[in-house]
Amino acid sequence: MAAVEPSRSRLVPMDRVEALALLAKAPFGRVVFSHQALPAIRPVNHLVEASGDIVIRTHTGMALLGRAALSEVVAYEADDLDPVTRTGWSVVVTGTASPVSDPAELARYQAALTSWVEADMEHVVRIRADLVTGYRLVRGGTGS
Amino acid sequence: MAAVEPSRSRLVPMDRVEALALLAKAPFGRVVFSHQALPAIRPVNHLVEASGDIVIRTHTGMALLGRAALSEVVAYEADDLDPVTRTGWSVVVTGTASPVSDPAELARYQAALTSWVEADMEHVVRIRADLVTGYRLVRGGTGS
Repeated sequence: MAAVEPSRSRLVPMDRVEALALLAKAPFGRVVFSHQALPAIRPVNHLVEASGDIVIRTHTGMALLGRAALSEVVAYEADDLDPVTRTGWSVVVTGTASPVSDPAELARYQAALTSWVEADMEHVVRIRADLVTGYRLVRGGTGS
Repeated sequence: MAAVEPSRSRLVPMDRVEALALLAKAPFGRVVFSHQALPAIRPVNHLVEASGDIVIRTHTGMALLGRAALSEVVAYEADDLDPVTRTGWSVVVTGTASPVSDPAELARYQAALTSWVEADMEHVVRIRADLVTGYRLVRGGTGS
């Protein structure tokens, strides 16, 4: 029953500061939300504020997230994992997402954050970094 | 107001067959589920069955997903996006996740799918590919 398997990695948790620093340098991430009561996920790019809040730009295809005054709890994930060495990291921020409507803030974010995708309608959404978790996958299985 | 921005990409949807073929070749993906009424996401590796169903191995840290007879709707995402060219693809499978309990099936999946992470408790979970969506990000903004 106990088949021989390749050496596995260990999960090592990281703290909020390290997790947000990695997220800030990541070129993109994935926003996780509910759409019609189903789990939904979309890759987007982002910026990380000094407060740790995440700011993304969304288009019409992203459904709920862009809607007027709606706030909802979402997750935002980025990772950098090497399938060959099975090492790397993953960070998840969980918090309330709400649309940015202040014109000065909107202008600032639109200048600082270029959406990858061409779209007619666009919203800027801020995700409050209420909960920040992250881990590194490091070598060091029982077999080593 | 209309700042000059880098050329953007277009989203081109793909069909189920192409999406599942890309997913089958992806080294890992991310399972999206609910945990304590919050959105949660974890990178894991997977295999894709001929039916399109996704099979993953989970450990205790993955909460809900591993629980006995529980079934819930989850999303499973993989992508390969190039931040420099802003091209690539993303695939999302949405469907019911349920634990695999049949001993013969368990043995087969445990042989075919090596978990990256060392963990004491482990479950094998099958995600039914009820809904498969995918898109390619291709060059061709209005400015080109």
